[in-house]
Amino acid sequence: MTTCELCRNAGGEVVAQTRQWRVVRVVDAAFPAFYRVIWNPHVAEFSDLSPTDRGECMDVVTRVERVLREQLSPTKVNLASLGNVVPHLHWHVIARFDWDSHFPGPVWAGSRRAVNPAAVSRLAVSLDRLDLAVRDALEPVPL
Amino acid sequence: MTTCELCRNAGGEVVAQTRQWRVVRVVDAAFPAFYRVIWNPHVAEFSDLSPTDRGECMDVVTRVERVLREQLSPTKVNLASLGNVVPHLHWHVIARFDWDSHFPGPVWAGSRRAVNPAAVSRLAVSLDRLDLAVRDALEPVPL
Repeated sequence: MTTCELCRNAGGEVVAQTRQWRVVRVVDAAFPAFYRVIWNPHVAEFSDLSPTDRGECMDVVTRVERVLREQLSPTKVNLASLGNVVPHLHWHVIARFDWDSHFPGPVWAGSRRAVNPAAVSRLAVSLDRLDLAVRDALEPVPL
Repeated sequence: MTTCELCRNAGGEVVAQTRQWRVVRVVDAAFPAFYRVIWNPHVAEFSDLSPTDRGECMDVVTRVERVLREQLSPTKVNLASLGNVVPHLHWHVIARFDWDSHFPGPVWAGSRRAVNPAAVSRLAVSLDRLDLAVRDALEPVPL
């Protein structure tokens, strides 16, 4: 039995998936437009992937980033593959706004301000619509 | 005159460069094996690059990551493209160790421990040798 959290569990709300990867939305009140691209086979580092798989993985990351930009016009998109706690390759794709609680700090640094009303209510579209737009951008996937 | 920090300045010690990109080492006592891959033309987001340029950019990131793994056997490599403060496309490539001051937290979160002797003295090779290995992995660049 594997003990890897991302081999055992989805890691968020699954929005789209293939045999090779899945895209989940992370439920985070401070950063509602926060997706993860998780590579399904267990590898720890990006450089463990073949060139073809690296291309496919970043193509998915790019498609998610584009949906966030088109739907939300964020101040910036943040991309990161860390995996210190769960060393299973996954990319964070996070829409950031100049009004969000941590901006311009990384989401992992300290909060700089309280946000009222809630961050989700400030997005240009609902999370349901955002998920649909991400799914549409990924299926079918002519990679 | 541009006001972009990464259009005006190298952003670290330049280790390798082409017309399209440069790799610099960041001088950070807590994270001595910390490189940045900076895309030279000014674009803000990864998805602003063409498919060919995205491939080249991530190939450079992958080569740097592989050098860190081969030379240092880090616990994990962290990759990130944030750019909230300087919205000019750059990738952080950071070797992380289970003994480092912030592990397993991100480098942007709080410190968890003091590290003595200094982190740089714990690396398997000197920074000069590491820089040379990064340069060797990138020049010539048959992309």
